[in-house]
Amino acid sequence: MLRTKTCGELNISNVSEEITLSGWVQKNRDLGGMTFVDLRDRYGITQLAFNMHENSDLCEKARKLGREFVIQVNGEVIERSSKNTNISTGEIEIKVTELTLLNASKTPPFTIEDETDGGDELRMKYRYLDIRRAPIKENIILRSRVASETRKYLDARGFYEIETPYLIKSTPEGARDFVVPSRMNEGQFYALPQSPQTFKQLLMVAGMDKYYQIVRCFRDEDLRADRQPEFTQIDCEMAFVEQEDILNMFEGLTRHLLKEVKNVEVSDFPRMTYDEAMKMYGSDKPDIRFGMKFIEMNDVCQQNDFVVFDSAELVVGINVKGGSSFTRKELDTITDFVKTPQIGAKGLVYCKCNEDGTFKSSVDKFFSQEDLNNWADKCKSSAGDLILVMAGETEKTRKALSNLRLHLAEKLGLRNSDAFAPLWVLDFPLLEWDEETEKYHAMHHPFTSPKQNDIEKLDTDPSRVRANAYDLVLNGNEIGGGSIRIHDKDLQKLMFKHLGFTEEQAKEQFGFLMDAFEYGAPPHGGVAFGFDRLCAIMGGQESIRDFIAFPKNNSGRDVMIDSPANIDEEQLKELNIKLQK
Amino acid sequence: MLRTKTCGELNISNVSEEITLSGWVQKNRDLGGMTFVDLRDRYGITQLAFNMHENSDLCEKARKLGREFVIQVNGEVIERSSKNTNISTGEIEIKVTELTLLNASKTPPFTIEDETDGGDELRMKYRYLDIRRAPIKENIILRSRVASETRKYLDARGFYEIETPYLIKSTPEGARDFVVPSRMNEGQFYALPQSPQTFKQLLMVAGMDKYYQIVRCFRDEDLRADRQPEFTQIDCEMAFVEQEDILNMFEGLTRHLLKEVKNVEVSDFPRMTYDEAMKMYGSDKPDIRFGMKFIEMNDVCQQNDFVVFDSAELVVGINVKGGSSFTRKELDTITDFVKTPQIGAKGLVYCKCNEDGTFKSSVDKFFSQEDLNNWADKCKSSAGDLILVMAGETEKTRKALSNLRLHLAEKLGLRNSDAFAPLWVLDFPLLEWDEETEKYHAMHHPFTSPKQNDIEKLDTDPSRVRANAYDLVLNGNEIGGGSIRIHDKDLQKLMFKHLGFTEEQAKEQFGFLMDAFEYGAPPHGGVAFGFDRLCAIMGGQESIRDFIAFPKNNSGRDVMIDSPANIDEEQLKELNIKLQK
Repeated sequence: MLRTKTCGELNISNVSEEITLSGWVQKNRDLGGMTFVDLRDRYGITQLAFNMHENSDLCEKARKLGREFVIQVNGEVIERSSKNTNISTGEIEIKVTELTLLNASKTPPFTIEDETDGGDELRMKYRYLDIRRAPIKENIILRSRVASETRKYLDARGFYEIETPYLIKSTPEGARDFVVPSRMNEGQFYALPQSPQTFKQLLMVAGMDKYYQIVRCFRDEDLRADRQPEFTQIDCEMAFVEQEDILNMFEGLTRHLLKEVKNVEVSDFPRMTYDEAMKMYGSDKPDIRFGMKFIEMNDVCQQNDFVVFDSAELVVGINVKGGSSFTRKELDTITDFVKTPQIGAKGLVYCKCNEDGTFKSSVDKFFSQEDLNNWADKCKSSAGDLILVMAGETEKTRKALSNLRLHLAEKLGLRNSDAFAPLWVLDFPLLEWDEETEKYHAMHHPFTSPKQNDIEKLDTDPSRVRANAYDLVLNGNEIGGGSIRIHDKDLQKLMFKHLGFTEEQAKEQFGFLMDAFEYGAPPHGGVAFGFDRLCAIMGGQESIRDFIAFPKNNSGRDVMIDSPANIDEEQLKELNIKLQK
Repeated sequence: MLRTKTCGELNISNVSEEITLSGWVQKNRDLGGMTFVDLRDRYGITQLAFNMHENSDLCEKARKLGREFVIQVNGEVIERSSKNTNISTGEIEIKVTELTLLNASKTPPFTIEDETDGGDELRMKYRYLDIRRAPIKENIILRSRVASETRKYLDARGFYEIETPYLIKSTPEGARDFVVPSRMNEGQFYALPQSPQTFKQLLMVAGMDKYYQIVRCFRDEDLRADRQPEFTQIDCEMAFVEQEDILNMFEGLTRHLLKEVKNVEVSDFPRMTYDEAMKMYGSDKPDIRFGMKFIEMNDVCQQNDFVVFDSAELVVGINVKGGSSFTRKELDTITDFVKTPQIGAKGLVYCKCNEDGTFKSSVDKFFSQEDLNNWADKCKSSAGDLILVMAGETEKTRKALSNLRLHLAEKLGLRNSDAFAPLWVLDFPLLEWDEETEKYHAMHHPFTSPKQNDIEKLDTDPSRVRANAYDLVLNGNEIGGGSIRIHDKDLQKLMFKHLGFTEEQAKEQFGFLMDAFEYGAPPHGGVAFGFDRLCAIMGGQESIRDFIAFPKNNSGRDVMIDSPANIDEEQLKELNIKLQK
């Protein structure tokens, strides 16, 4: 036994116990007569005391301990004279009688502190040291707890976790696959799954009834910031269910996780349609921790000879509580923000609701005080508020205003990372027009069922066909999405046709699923959560990278193990491939 | 809601309830006045009753239902007149008032029964139908339960499940890797992990203290029977532990699983060294559900002018309880068995201990009744027993006799699949001589620590160096194995040297791990369980395939999805590879 206790558990009730601890040297303070060493392990920090007068050899030995040395000590728990009330072990220390060096350490390339001096590159190269830092360690532990609580919730409700294969078949549809050359099947390749979608549907056909899996997925995309080539999903599917059953089950899971992991009770779990979300927030994943809902203002803004408004498909505003105190400079900065290429708006109209009941707008030339009063009525603005208005083509304008809304919320501190506001967005469009290929493609995936009443529009007005598809949004991030699937072979065929698959293509890629649908497929549906994102948001952060033990960088490289790497000619030959020159 | 109850939960206490069920038509019996349909779902089977006189339309509709049709019914729970006491729902049936066809089914290619008429190929191609059969379904459920109970046990003991990457780096050492071409890093490849070994060691260096993961691993081997290119491990590692801590922790896990999943209490959890196991059973994974331990008989067998024995390094026998009743023909068959190429013995000597106290052996020419009596004393044989003796070079003879022992146990019904006999085998050799490369290689892996007292033999007598390595054996199968790792950089260097790595090779392949060892690696060790095998044995079966939802065949193919498959030229080009002609 290398320890009898951990560095996080001793307190005043343990005084006078003889114990053995092991851990890392966090800090070493030589005060002359006394030397104090902070010993750290996963569980906490315990202070070790060495007295020069009582045992000079031991004390000398302690003084030589460098940062991150691994040691074992025997000693007695004693009460501290000067207590530290910030940590649970702060009332005691260990009077050490024996010290064993288990392993020395070079000086680490960055400090193992909450706020480290290590840059990103260095932290990633020495990720095993980075994880020793409390913030990263806590993220990894949070992730583990979210997984564990997810399983507890689903296990208790009759779900079985079932593993699906990682070596599957490449499908050109959707994002790029990672592929794996098969040595035994010359010239052929496996693909790594982008999700277990078809397998979970097959498990429903197989009668497994309720399935889940916390599962790795792979996508060979050009990595945008904060995307990983391998990522984790909580993947779920249920048979003999309707949309309502699924929404209730996973609203329950979300409540459970927030309660058990964050001790947060979610009172409200609103639902809105995709159309409503776009109309009220200009986004299919609105952050509803704060207001600033969109107000459509065509009626009070148009026909005043202001051509920007008059020529616009949509005039839409938001009311910024207390925003009339923004300075001219602040308003200019905001206007510059909406004009940046990534937002792409032509301009921004503001109207300050002054404390004295008057209005000051950037379009005073065109709008009288009475006109502006109508704006304020429309926007339910009070004295001290600021109305911001944008105009133009509907979709683009909404998108720009949505960005502005989030930007302002950030500026005003309304995106509180301790608050959690989940939301279901329902009735997504089934199809999405792809400018590039000039074809419709499935907004979720080709197995999503259309709303029964909309099926006839597939031929006449495809973009208006709504799907039995839903997203779970948390704090402005899509953390999950799913749908009721098609379980009827003929409807699936129809869908493939509308997605531009020839019968041969559909058969080649999904023949086994369409075959399966001939043998008594039950009605079914499911959902998949982006597990990395869920953990990051629950941890109050926007970036997923520090919630993954060993992440890759934006070029898909693991800089710690230096991968990917070259492989030798022999290996390539065995795999029947060679490099293109 | 497509159902209010499942097909497994209704019984006499539900009589007169109005319920809705959904499921598959298992059986349809038209008895003229009455039609009975067995409705099946994951939870069980419930009988549906249709009365021709009361509702002829509905009854006609029911008669047309084919096998595996998916239906929904409303009706009343009523008491059956003729009860079936074999199933929990056997006292009731549903008097159906409404029947909805949810999906039709083609006639399945094999019967969905416990004993199916489907051959292996067909079952694999239509695995989603195969899983509907109770034996397969129960295996998949058992697997899910073993995983769930494993997590419960480890979570309760302070382990965190931490995900390690699947896209890692190829290491030529050991079995072949599957590799994944990187599109973004031209000419370079990721590898899929054969195990998370190095990452779990890095997590210990990172201070995570107790790690586990139920994780997929990949090995591109020529598949022997019952091997899969992707398989699952319960992978565990602990810091600040000695071997004893690990043995206790995972003996506890094994007890927990057998108790919770099989309701079996394991009384005894013996340990033996590798040397003892080889001496007593000729195997490092002895099946100790039964006796027939080896008895070394050189002293009573040699120097009797029987040259086969006299020239042998080892003469070794087993006592077969009650085996004297074997006929001459049976003995011939057994002798033929040991002479088959896979056993490779030259012959077998037997000695029957007759009921009258005399002996009848196949070597009566050389051995007197008194000699044979000595054999019987040595083997503690009683009247009615049979002594079987083999002789030759020690290792080969032990191996052959071990095979014979298992063969006889099978024949005599001693390998009871409801009995569970776990065993730790300890003190494995560190190194193994490889005839082919004429080099020593690591018996477990290159990170296994040698016994402190044996380190000096690394130079003088490498084959005699024992490792802090252990295997967990269950019913004659290795279900887990592990070791205390090397945490000292210098010792790790020494090991690489003895394994024939140049410093450059070691650095290139494991440099990051050796670097990590410079920054305060704690003493650590762990274990990995073969999860597929563990599930199969707990399910009382030898083959792992039916404990995997979607297994591959012996050529590494998934015949259901028809994978691996060709990929198009475009994709190859993007990946910067081409096929060898």
